[in-house]
Amino acid sequence: MSDPIWDADTLVARYDEVRAHTETLAAPLSPEDQTVQSMPDVSPTKWHRAHVTWFFETFVLAEHEPSFTPYQDQYWFLFNSYYEGVGPRYARAERGFITRPGASDVGLYRDDVDARMRDLVTRLDGGTLEKLAPTIELGFHHEQQHQELLLMDIKHVLSVNPLQPSYAGRPLTPSEPDPLGWVDVEGGLVEVGHRGGGFGFDNELPLHQQWLEPYRLADRLVTNGEWLEFMADRGYERHELWLSDGWARVRAEGWRAPFYWTEVDGAWFEHTLSGTRPVDPGLPVSHVSHYEADAYATWAGRRLPTEGEWEHAVVADGQAEVAATVGSNLADTETFHPRAAGPSTGHLRQVHGDCWEWTSSAYLAYPGYHPPAGAIGEYNGKFMSGQMVLRGGCALTPPGHARLSYRNFFPPGARWALSGVRLADGSARS
Amino acid sequence: MSDPIWDADTLVARYDEVRAHTETLAAPLSPEDQTVQSMPDVSPTKWHRAHVTWFFETFVLAEHEPSFTPYQDQYWFLFNSYYEGVGPRYARAERGFITRPGASDVGLYRDDVDARMRDLVTRLDGGTLEKLAPTIELGFHHEQQHQELLLMDIKHVLSVNPLQPSYAGRPLTPSEPDPLGWVDVEGGLVEVGHRGGGFGFDNELPLHQQWLEPYRLADRLVTNGEWLEFMADRGYERHELWLSDGWARVRAEGWRAPFYWTEVDGAWFEHTLSGTRPVDPGLPVSHVSHYEADAYATWAGRRLPTEGEWEHAVVADGQAEVAATVGSNLADTETFHPRAAGPSTGHLRQVHGDCWEWTSSAYLAYPGYHPPAGAIGEYNGKFMSGQMVLRGGCALTPPGHARLSYRNFFPPGARWALSGVRLADGSARS
Amino acid sequence: MSDPIWDADTLVARYDEVRAHTETLAAPLSPEDQTVQSMPDVSPTKWHRAHVTWFFETFVLAEHEPSFTPYQDQYWFLFNSYYEGVGPRYARAERGFITRPGASDVGLYRDDVDARMRDLVTRLDGGTLEKLAPTIELGFHHEQQHQELLLMDIKHVLSVNPLQPSYAGRPLTPSEPDPLGWVDVEGGLVEVGHRGGGFGFDNELPLHQQWLEPYRLADRLVTNGEWLEFMADRGYERHELWLSDGWARVRAEGWRAPFYWTEVDGAWFEHTLSGTRPVDPGLPVSHVSHYEADAYATWAGRRLPTEGEWEHAVVADGQAEVAATVGSNLADTETFHPRAAGPSTGHLRQVHGDCWEWTSSAYLAYPGYHPPAGAIGEYNGKFMSGQMVLRGGCALTPPGHARLSYRNFFPPGARWALSGVRLADGSARS
Amino acid sequence: MSDPIWDADTLVARYDEVRAHTETLAAPLSPEDQTVQSMPDVSPTKWHRAHVTWFFETFVLAEHEPSFTPYQDQYWFLFNSYYEGVGPRYARAERGFITRPGASDVGLYRDDVDARMRDLVTRLDGGTLEKLAPTIELGFHHEQQHQELLLMDIKHVLSVNPLQPSYAGRPLTPSEPDPLGWVDVEGGLVEVGHRGGGFGFDNELPLHQQWLEPYRLADRLVTNGEWLEFMADRGYERHELWLSDGWARVRAEGWRAPFYWTEVDGAWFEHTLSGTRPVDPGLPVSHVSHYEADAYATWAGRRLPTEGEWEHAVVADGQAEVAATVGSNLADTETFHPRAAGPSTGHLRQVHGDCWEWTSSAYLAYPGYHPPAGAIGEYNGKFMSGQMVLRGGCALTPPGHARLSYRNFFPPGARWALSGVRLADGSARS
Repeated sequence: MSDPIWDADTLVARYDEVRAHTETLAAPLSPEDQTVQSMPDVSPTKWHRAHVTWFFETFVLAEHEPSFTPYQDQYWFLFNSYYEGVGPRYARAERGFITRPGASDVGLYRDDVDARMRDLVTRLDGGTLEKLAPTIELGFHHEQQHQELLLMDIKHVLSVNPLQPSYAGRPLTPSEPDPLGWVDVEGGLVEVGHRGGGFGFDNELPLHQQWLEPYRLADRLVTNGEWLEFMADRGYERHELWLSDGWARVRAEGWRAPFYWTEVDGAWFEHTLSGTRPVDPGLPVSHVSHYEADAYATWAGRRLPTEGEWEHAVVADGQAEVAATVGSNLADTETFHPRAAGPSTGHLRQVHGDCWEWTSSAYLAYPGYHPPAGAIGEYNGKFMSGQMVLRGGCALTPPGHARLSYRNFFPPGARWALSGVRLADGSARS
Repeated sequence: MSDPIWDADTLVARYDEVRAHTETLAAPLSPEDQTVQSMPDVSPTKWHRAHVTWFFETFVLAEHEPSFTPYQDQYWFLFNSYYEGVGPRYARAERGFITRPGASDVGLYRDDVDARMRDLVTRLDGGTLEKLAPTIELGFHHEQQHQELLLMDIKHVLSVNPLQPSYAGRPLTPSEPDPLGWVDVEGGLVEVGHRGGGFGFDNELPLHQQWLEPYRLADRLVTNGEWLEFMADRGYERHELWLSDGWARVRAEGWRAPFYWTEVDGAWFEHTLSGTRPVDPGLPVSHVSHYEADAYATWAGRRLPTEGEWEHAVVADGQAEVAATVGSNLADTETFHPRAAGPSTGHLRQVHGDCWEWTSSAYLAYPGYHPPAGAIGEYNGKFMSGQMVLRGGCALTPPGHARLSYRNFFPPGARWALSGVRLADGSARS
Repeated sequence: MSDPIWDADTLVARYDEVRAHTETLAAPLSPEDQTVQSMPDVSPTKWHRAHVTWFFETFVLAEHEPSFTPYQDQYWFLFNSYYEGVGPRYARAERGFITRPGASDVGLYRDDVDARMRDLVTRLDGGTLEKLAPTIELGFHHEQQHQELLLMDIKHVLSVNPLQPSYAGRPLTPSEPDPLGWVDVEGGLVEVGHRGGGFGFDNELPLHQQWLEPYRLADRLVTNGEWLEFMADRGYERHELWLSDGWARVRAEGWRAPFYWTEVDGAWFEHTLSGTRPVDPGLPVSHVSHYEADAYATWAGRRLPTEGEWEHAVVADGQAEVAATVGSNLADTETFHPRAAGPSTGHLRQVHGDCWEWTSSAYLAYPGYHPPAGAIGEYNGKFMSGQMVLRGGCALTPPGHARLSYRNFFPPGARWALSGVRLADGSARS
Repeated sequence: MSDPIWDADTLVARYDEVRAHTETLAAPLSPEDQTVQSMPDVSPTKWHRAHVTWFFETFVLAEHEPSFTPYQDQYWFLFNSYYEGVGPRYARAERGFITRPGASDVGLYRDDVDARMRDLVTRLDGGTLEKLAPTIELGFHHEQQHQELLLMDIKHVLSVNPLQPSYAGRPLTPSEPDPLGWVDVEGGLVEVGHRGGGFGFDNELPLHQQWLEPYRLADRLVTNGEWLEFMADRGYERHELWLSDGWARVRAEGWRAPFYWTEVDGAWFEHTLSGTRPVDPGLPVSHVSHYEADAYATWAGRRLPTEGEWEHAVVADGQAEVAATVGSNLADTETFHPRAAGPSTGHLRQVHGDCWEWTSSAYLAYPGYHPPAGAIGEYNGKFMSGQMVLRGGCALTPPGHARLSYRNFFPPGARWALSGVRLADGSARS
């Protein structure tokens, strides 16, 4: 689903803007930083930079450029992520073995595709442009997803280094904990999904009805301070709080705190993109898995919201229009970190731009969903198994990327994403 | 949720009936057969026989028997399945290392607990009996679940033996394929969950509303003959039909047919509890994973039903009452195998007693669900992660065990359960 | 290499004797005991009983019986251990999945082959018998090797059971530690290998020369009491005592005592075939790996002997003839356990019949060694990689099986064999 | 064992020479090339550059520099290879995760240590210098070992890249196969080990006697052409040629040719440091494991030599003095590849500087060997388990590093080292 009207100039301007943002994010990183894959989930920075370029080359240039030839035959193979329909591809877990092309070679690749993209778009007649625009727009959103992933991934890469290097940004000043309030929502037969009027991924469709019982949502995210209470109450040691799969992971991997926390002489510190710093009790807890989010909710006597509850609550609370515009608050390049909730307003706080919020919904097709035809149909649909939905957006999400109906998803044990927790509850609770 | 009225005599009679059925199922098996664990998912027969006994010992005798002492201290440890609240337990993957107690020692353990159970029930006063009856009834249904698992497990144990041993039963005579029809269902705001009036597990509660768009369900299960067409059309080789996790399994484990099929000189054979026999095109396909069921549905241009659609269709089709009584058709001890659908009747066929039917629903809590307090609360709730729901029942399900609202669940890659496929579709399809 | 003269009666008598001993060893074990494989190194008792029978069927009956047909086609596949030349075989790690044939079926198999073997031997003419006798004699020694393995393996099977079952035998009475003495050996150009005059495996050939510097050997094995001193001196925690591979195993598997030792409230207990009992400081330490033996020797300021040193010392000490006869002391069916050294005699004690003694020699071919032609050539030669030599014999070795030149071998990390430690040193040490 | 006389100037000059050679070897490599670890056995180039620097910092500066402080605290941890005695260390398999220090930061570290080393050496009085010189000389040989490893490792790193990058060097011109001859050696009681008069590692000591039967050695290495015959004769498919462990590897890893060979349209190509090129039948085969070397020898009806046979043959053939000087032929920076044997001379060819030659000897202590005291004692002794000895040297060995008594060692399955095969045989063979 795409915006209806794109002219060539607007399209090129937006293209340049999106592409430039990727390079801005990569700028603080050395060639060595850009090369390393610290675990299979993580991709090297230069791989992200090349892959989003490959996407335009494969789905736009190869389809529409007269007498197209690939920039480099082997890049076709190296920078395909998971599109079986495009052909064989380099093993995901070995992306960190690619010494060449180097970071600067990837820059040359980007320059070449950029020039050809601009050339193509400005030469196309109106009818062809109209048909092509949705794929190019998909490429913008695809690149934005990778901008967020690039930051999550380099955060992990730097975390395994005993030198404790910093990426960028300045540390936040310590914050005061804000009281938790609740927003009541009536429920009933509500609409969920993309309502039109702008871009959306296929997995947000179709707009459909769900029946919701009355419920309420916490008006802010769970804080580090609250999480420390959970830990102090032996939350990571009490099997009865955990899903069976979650408990198995706790024991197999020795979880005892959020992913990037380390204890030094009894005090907790957190690895951030701006360096290692003391855990701030007023900030939202982040880098917790679905298993941990669920265990915390059980401990708190609450539960996680479904994705339908989350989406409807934002609409009912009058935040939907805000959400459409708050994109500009995101990609917090001052701090690269979720910020404190601030004083209560009676409305939902931290809805966009702090932490992706785990829901209790498995990532499955909406009723009537059909993936698009062709290799592009592999974008979303084939991942609808074994993952949980997250909603909202996070401090690393680029401006204009997140929206009300956006469905992010990760396996329930994933912790390297910037994920947090908002509690839900039945309405009748007193 | 339990039947309201149990008197001591009825309870003891039912106890004896359930317990005797387990021993009947184990009777054809040698001590060696009863000892082996052929993969971590599988438990040895004698372990099943002991574990269901441990359940009564732990949750009934230990709670209510005056001056209770365990039959054998170490059995407490050996025969706990997954109840963290009861204490440490023997590793699941090592159940096949238990040479002692032997099969006959387990018989002595069963006899001892049976005598004490009968004694306890007949001595209790009415008020205590009323409070205890639901736990004993839960023990009946627990033992029935293990009767089904015992058969699924021994099927696997015997399958890895090149001698191709048979458990019991006589082979079915070859069947004719029956044409596939469709049953249209209107949808709307429908009720899903246990409606009262008999036993149900906690996970079937609460009864709640769901909104369903109009849809239709196939009036019988997918057959072996149809599956052979899927295979002939390279169904196991075309990535575009598969969920990403499913395709990874296909390649990692070399799947190219249902679990128990083997090809000999171009013809397909199936391992069954009655021996190895040629694949019968008229019988329902069985022992396929959720991944395979989903890929087949994609190939057929259809989809799997949600569990709400499945349950409501049975109600709408007037099968709900039938379902309540067809228990007696189940546990087909003549064949231990799903049977052919028979001629179309305009109603849903093979709803109970052939194959557990994969749905497209993840196994999650119903809105408002709360697990019971104590160790017994671990029965269902903690498994609500990473699994898919199956509905109906199968040819190995004991009489009176399955019901309309029953939620069976397995990981999407599981194949050793007796699972099959019923297709669904939107109503407007022509 | 074989004894020169076998007549038919002697051969049948010896055959019956060896075969009967296997059944005697299996007699205390239930069908369940005989079925279980508790780790890949271990084989089930009934598999040992069948495999040694398969050996006679394959290498004798199939070669020499007129109109031979296998007893059961699939046994050919199931009970082949590692002979690639005989055809495909059942996976070693899955021997514990074989429920059928049961223990009694294996007995029928043994009876059938025994009858045919007796029949064949008594019908053969003298010339054919002479040619065949070496293979039959190899079968005796092969079966004796498996008698020893059967005991080592069932010891492990029973050890993983929390019921702590006992196999047989009576516990030893506590023993007094005996002082350690040293036997000096001159060295020089010495002979190593089988000297003829009786059976030997191919790997004991050819008899060859080695140059040895003067050395000395401890006159008894290291005791449990001495091992407790090593542990008390943090032997399992000090990397500098260990080979690199050994230290990696210590850390990966958490070694902190010999294999079958467990600590209960500060006291050490040992799992034996006669049940669990307190560690006796006067008995030889057993079930230690080569890595542990080497670390102990380093800690003690000594070293392990080479196999040439071991063999020559026995000759030089005048023990070689004794060794040829002490077979009758072995297979200690009263205790199934190595016994205390007893008072010093100025000669080497515990040379045969207590623990297999780790040497510092890798298991490699003697100069000029050639394996025999055909499948039987796989018996020894192909294992000459990655293993260490042990010399002597152990309390589970059957009568008449061990000898001076016998080369046993296991990987350096193996602990389930009945292995112990004898120290060596240079002669000049004071 | 060290050269007797080092004055400060000679020592500094040699120091500068060795250190400069490392930087010369790293010069063609980009920061990205220097960062990647393509498998656990491989270390990144910049890690090698830093680790050899750490060696001087740890064993020389830390011991002798007044008021020593480490250059960077964390480098102490990051660049320790395996010295348990020096303290905890960064996990070997994660060396490729180190993005910082970058390649140029490592250069600064090298400069700093170099300056301090020069300063220390020139300030020391004669007595202290004499005591310190052996450790500094050990550092030279240590750095040379890593120069060779750096090349072997970067060869692997570049091999996993589909762009097929080249390191340096020019391809060899195709060569003619040279006929194989044999050199007869008499054997008897011979001396093996370091004879004094220059540097040697501790594992070459003590010089000792071995008894050798008469034997002969091939006068050149096995060629690619001969290896192609082995392959054409199904050498990788015939179990009877292989050690059991080797056959397991062949099947588990699908070996069908030497490590760096790939087949394209029926022709074989070889990855080299100078790019991918057709397999040249006249060059020595390289990058084969001990298992492959042994299987080839079995196929050829020959065997591998023991290390004693190899060493004595070089002496007996009059090559020992040559060997002492041929260092200057090594480190073939024109080709980085073993060269053809050239015409027969009646003497042993390709003894140094082509391929490390697998022997049939396990890497074990010589009689009377004792490792040095302290952390430096971990250099060699603790690896004497599970590895096989290689003799000679290879085309990547730096000038002056290899020698007659040098004992290289790798696990029998290792293939990424530049290893080849020389056949041996008994003398009587006709």
